[in-house]
Amino acid sequence: MAVFTPVSLDDLTQWLSQFPLGKALAIKGISSGIENSNFFIDTEAGEYVLTVFEKLSFEQLPFYLELMRHLAQRGVAVPAPIANADGSIINALHGKPAAIVSKLAGESQMSPGPVHCYAVGEMLAKMHLAARDFAIKQPNLRGLSWWRETAPVVLPFLPEEIQQLLRAELQFQEDFAETETFNNLPNGPVHADLFRNNVMFDGDRLTGFFDFYFAGCDTWLFDLAVTVNDWCIDVHTGGLDETRVAAMLDGYRSVQPFSIDEQLAWQPMLRAAALRFWLSRLYDFYLPRPAEMLTPLDPTDFERILRQRIAHPAPALV
Amino acid sequence: MAVFTPVSLDDLTQWLSQFPLGKALAIKGISSGIENSNFFIDTEAGEYVLTVFEKLSFEQLPFYLELMRHLAQRGVAVPAPIANADGSIINALHGKPAAIVSKLAGESQMSPGPVHCYAVGEMLAKMHLAARDFAIKQPNLRGLSWWRETAPVVLPFLPEEIQQLLRAELQFQEDFAETETFNNLPNGPVHADLFRNNVMFDGDRLTGFFDFYFAGCDTWLFDLAVTVNDWCIDVHTGGLDETRVAAMLDGYRSVQPFSIDEQLAWQPMLRAAALRFWLSRLYDFYLPRPAEMLTPLDPTDFERILRQRIAHPAPALV
Repeated sequence: MAVFTPVSLDDLTQWLSQFPLGKALAIKGISSGIENSNFFIDTEAGEYVLTVFEKLSFEQLPFYLELMRHLAQRGVAVPAPIANADGSIINALHGKPAAIVSKLAGESQMSPGPVHCYAVGEMLAKMHLAARDFAIKQPNLRGLSWWRETAPVVLPFLPEEIQQLLRAELQFQEDFAETETFNNLPNGPVHADLFRNNVMFDGDRLTGFFDFYFAGCDTWLFDLAVTVNDWCIDVHTGGLDETRVAAMLDGYRSVQPFSIDEQLAWQPMLRAAALRFWLSRLYDFYLPRPAEMLTPLDPTDFERILRQRIAHPAPALV
Repeated sequence: MAVFTPVSLDDLTQWLSQFPLGKALAIKGISSGIENSNFFIDTEAGEYVLTVFEKLSFEQLPFYLELMRHLAQRGVAVPAPIANADGSIINALHGKPAAIVSKLAGESQMSPGPVHCYAVGEMLAKMHLAARDFAIKQPNLRGLSWWRETAPVVLPFLPEEIQQLLRAELQFQEDFAETETFNNLPNGPVHADLFRNNVMFDGDRLTGFFDFYFAGCDTWLFDLAVTVNDWCIDVHTGGLDETRVAAMLDGYRSVQPFSIDEQLAWQPMLRAAALRFWLSRLYDFYLPRPAEMLTPLDPTDFERILRQRIAHPAPALV
């Protein structure tokens, strides 16, 4: 994450006293990501991750942190939130909500092969099943409603031909969302942002999913489409690598087979997943916020992916 | 068509006396096709086509011939049936039902370009609209029920790996047919067999669709998928030629835009259209009927097309 709220070692030392983690030894900002301020922290109890939430409120946060606790308790490898002496997992730091979670072993696999894609698909399906009985409900806050709000804000920055693509795709997704096929899709809490940098591997062993702060209730297929659109593409063209796609789908299917409605919805959902990140990157590109260490992401990557998904659909989800 | 029932000039001379076409001058069997016996006939009134129906009954035939009359009356270029002195358009010949229809100008375009595909798509949509108020109802007799009956008959002739493909696809199509998306598709009388050899062109001008003897009530999208699977492919690989596909869809869309359900159903329907002809060719290959001039068609062409549609879906139907 970019660091929007600086936290010094002195700040941390004072704040950490409420947790059963001993003294603070070191703190280091994490540069990846764009929505929260994240830090690696060393304590006498070991290494953890501190997140200061820049946009999410005290009211919104229990969904994310309780979901992580829920999943961790069911054997899904995710960071476990650490409670303070009062049992609270969300506590103010510099006036903003903040949380400490356990640090996953390993590192991100930015050049994944089929073995990594299979493991991610398999664990994604296990996560969907494990989250089914999670009690707190919250929609995906970057879903269709947000697309509808955001498109008019970014459209004026775009050339006419690109405006047409964006308008046509938004209309298509609005029509799609009203079909019975869409309404029949299995849904529940999903990660909704499972890019390569939000998964850890120790060699070829998947050690966990993290950064659940875009999670929400949505279709499982949307989650899978977001994941395929990052893990299984040729990054130069945005086209799909069929071997990696097949591996990820095999992994998912080994846990949970695809329904007929999921099969019908697969191509539209890959487009929806591209649209969602195209819109957020357009927004962050044309309406940037002040931040330290912010690395802006290129919105045209997802414009290219959307065009690819329209012109060259993925293999059928059999 | 292959000629299953020979008709001599003497036979024709006698039979033709009931029609207002003058004397019979010549008769010539037509070799293409596999379901009826067809002949070009020269009469004092001009050139016509005589069809002797090998499988279709007197009860079934009004659907086809009245549909042709209905379409011709609404400006869709199709052969017009000729009535005899009693006003009947279906009359026995060698104990089988037979009919005479007007002959279309031009010839089949077996190497179509985008201009031909656009014209076919455009006229196909016009035909679907013109057929909406046709009063006689008959299902597509080569639809899902027939696939269900036929698959068990041909499966024993196939190697295990190909059996698996056929079984899986039939199951997929059965599931698909039960979805709301399928049930929402616009439907009505369709040609259902609009291959290149069933369309005439005079240069680049489309002069008509013919051979309506597989017509029935089905989804418009099925008709379009059958047509795309023949007109818009690389015949060596079974892969789609995107330029010709785009031209045919542009032609169709210029008359009738695609609904959201048609967009969702496009890939499954291209597979359905491949399955239908794979099954009938398997049947004709492994359980052939006696016939003169019969040219058996290779069933593996449509097995290849089906595999292509699964692995490399068509561009989105936007």
